[in-house]
Amino acid sequence: MKFLTGVNKKETLEISQLITGDYTGKTVKVNGTVHSIRDMGTIAFIVLRKREGLLQCVYEETAADFDLKQLKEEAAVSVEGTAAESAKAPGGVEIRLTGITVLSIPSEPLPIPVSKWKMNTSLETSLNLRPVSLRNIRERAKFRIQEGIVKGFRNYLYEQGFTEIHTPKIGSRGAEGGANIFKLDYFHRPAVLAQSPQFYKQMMVGVFERVFETGPVFRAEKHNTKRHLNEYTSLDFEMGYIDGFEDIMAMETGVLQNIMKTLITDYGKELEILRITLPEVRQIPAVRFDEAKRLVSEKYNRPIKNPYDLEPEEEQLIGQYMKEEYDSDFVFVTHYPSKKRPFYAMDDPEDKTYTLSFDCLYKGMEITTGGQRIHDYKMLKEKLAARGMTEEGMEAYMMAFRHGMPPHGGLGIGLERLTMKLAGEENVRETTLFPRDLGRLEP
Amino acid sequence: MKFLTGVNKKETLEISQLITGDYTGKTVKVNGTVHSIRDMGTIAFIVLRKREGLLQCVYEETAADFDLKQLKEEAAVSVEGTAAESAKAPGGVEIRLTGITVLSIPSEPLPIPVSKWKMNTSLETSLNLRPVSLRNIRERAKFRIQEGIVKGFRNYLYEQGFTEIHTPKIGSRGAEGGANIFKLDYFHRPAVLAQSPQFYKQMMVGVFERVFETGPVFRAEKHNTKRHLNEYTSLDFEMGYIDGFEDIMAMETGVLQNIMKTLITDYGKELEILRITLPEVRQIPAVRFDEAKRLVSEKYNRPIKNPYDLEPEEEQLIGQYMKEEYDSDFVFVTHYPSKKRPFYAMDDPEDKTYTLSFDCLYKGMEITTGGQRIHDYKMLKEKLAARGMTEEGMEAYMMAFRHGMPPHGGLGIGLERLTMKLAGEENVRETTLFPRDLGRLEP
Repeated sequence: MKFLTGVNKKETLEISQLITGDYTGKTVKVNGTVHSIRDMGTIAFIVLRKREGLLQCVYEETAADFDLKQLKEEAAVSVEGTAAESAKAPGGVEIRLTGITVLSIPSEPLPIPVSKWKMNTSLETSLNLRPVSLRNIRERAKFRIQEGIVKGFRNYLYEQGFTEIHTPKIGSRGAEGGANIFKLDYFHRPAVLAQSPQFYKQMMVGVFERVFETGPVFRAEKHNTKRHLNEYTSLDFEMGYIDGFEDIMAMETGVLQNIMKTLITDYGKELEILRITLPEVRQIPAVRFDEAKRLVSEKYNRPIKNPYDLEPEEEQLIGQYMKEEYDSDFVFVTHYPSKKRPFYAMDDPEDKTYTLSFDCLYKGMEITTGGQRIHDYKMLKEKLAARGMTEEGMEAYMMAFRHGMPPHGGLGIGLERLTMKLAGEENVRETTLFPRDLGRLEP
Repeated sequence: MKFLTGVNKKETLEISQLITGDYTGKTVKVNGTVHSIRDMGTIAFIVLRKREGLLQCVYEETAADFDLKQLKEEAAVSVEGTAAESAKAPGGVEIRLTGITVLSIPSEPLPIPVSKWKMNTSLETSLNLRPVSLRNIRERAKFRIQEGIVKGFRNYLYEQGFTEIHTPKIGSRGAEGGANIFKLDYFHRPAVLAQSPQFYKQMMVGVFERVFETGPVFRAEKHNTKRHLNEYTSLDFEMGYIDGFEDIMAMETGVLQNIMKTLITDYGKELEILRITLPEVRQIPAVRFDEAKRLVSEKYNRPIKNPYDLEPEEEQLIGQYMKEEYDSDFVFVTHYPSKKRPFYAMDDPEDKTYTLSFDCLYKGMEITTGGQRIHDYKMLKEKLAARGMTEEGMEAYMMAFRHGMPPHGGLGIGLERLTMKLAGEENVRETTLFPRDLGRLEP
């Protein structure tokens, strides 16, 4: 009988091993994808793309037992050679090749210049060619940053006593209501795709007190803008025993601080590739919705059109205001009007026109919606009745409240939007591996 | 302007603080849910349910400024009292109450005895009452174990140089093919829910070399068994530059080892609550599909009915065999018949009737399917043609191969099944927060 005992050390080396280990002058083996070939005549530079970055290999006909003409860009290879210090090579190390083994050879050359620093293709082309356009070093770096955001989010919440949950994406009714729900047939019964894990995470506050989920949500919105996706990744948390909705904003501040810390610690390479300067998150200003509108109206000479709505341009100006006045890229806008919030939002007892809720804006764009929720069964029933809503399809949700729920609240962060703003992109599709929008169902 | 600076220390204490800190004789504040009230006449025991466990509070009419009759089970409260050592209390600490503040009071008593160690309700009832039945200490512990599994999976793969990805769940065609696909309308275009992230994770091998995803997958299977769900959480990874499909099994062995380590380190409380003895994963036997069939046929005197299929009973016997012969709860069954595997599976060059693929069985049940994939464009096209399949809807997938892909492979682990087997449960619904099956779309 054969046995598997775990991962065995491979003969092939990774870039970090080459850089930190003492391999100079030694024969090494490395695998990777041929990112580019620069043939100078007597010698050639073959740059390998590996998961940790690029590695320069030097080919000399006399030294290497291999015909360069048989090599193609995007071939997967295993190379052997002598490690050498080289100030000009990325990472300060290069491989002087003695042999190349081709593991896999492409059938056709790339349709776009993936190995260039900037590909200069349109977003449309880049998205159509996603399986290969993402092979570009800058493109893939954005998604490493995205990984760091998720890691920073999760690790902070683990530390803060949250439990990670996995809630169903197929259900009988959407949590947010409205028309923007994808419908499907579930064994001859009408079903919908979850617009958010809202109902489930709230119910789970009664079980675990603090929960989070990082998963897909689905919005059949007919918006075709730079900041809307029809499927996106939502970083959700919900926490019980709050003293007020400030506790939720405080937790988000902690989350954001830990995300920046994680990126600095573990993703320095990618920050450098993308030339990202991380925002300062020492303190985040919080301003009331109505006050924010007044402030930007006064400062930027812009009349308030609708006192109960925030236009994208106003959001941008609030961001600008906070940057100018308090040097902050983030701002919490609090006390959103009740009629702009779902039924489960807790109204402000001091003025029921407003809610104990907030949005977090980052560089003038909403990346988070959150707030305190109604936890009292009777209050919840009254709110539903006042809105003319029925409890149909919400029996389980109502059950949780009927049998007692602690004061609680939470939020949802749009992962792709936060990545976009961090990476300095203008379109959320740039920071989505495979975006889904009105026109795009593929790739 | 107000500012948020992060999470402030609260006055209220958590159980771990009470146990490890020196609070004996001191006045403390704690919040939690009233799990049970045991009224003994002159004194009463009020057990609070907190996220870290149960906390015993002792109420004496003379000492506490509160009328016990106003308290109900499942009320959310904040209590004040003196911390005291108590050998009989869980954690060795109890609170002698001086005051209780009710934060929220339920409207109706619980329909099931949540505070009992075992509720003795049917699975059907438990599932119908999920928002409250999960409040039971044993019920919720299962999902803490589930969290530990995911954490162990992710952390191991981060260490091994994998990148976490988020791939779309709505697409134009299913990766696994067949009839078991949920269909939906996507802005008047036919769309499907992802049966697995298979195509996407493979394409991303060309970008990141090693990727993983933990997310929902959807199978419109009409099975109504104890081990099938129509939506479940799949722990997927895919890795490039493998020397053979043994590398994938080696990686899974490492993952499983790290899961057990994580559970021992961080989830000792839950292992104890559920009386789980973790399996030994020092080494996992690997046996060929045909050999496994032969072995159990001989040992258990069971004729082989179909040489190209593995019945659930046979899987169970293979599990039994490996336990008896090698004291292993896990086994890799390798070289599954080609016709039982999807088109992308790499056939064994030595015998194309079989594939370089495997299932991992845990206590006789499949928890993982994995293997090496075809990475050569021409071979892939040939396999599709041989199966009479078209490339329609797979243009992006084919693009990745046309432009070069390294040798690679990967696997998917069913999270709920693994949790079920670890927790010693018989039905996968027991270890799913909100299961979706043929009959269940709610809660």
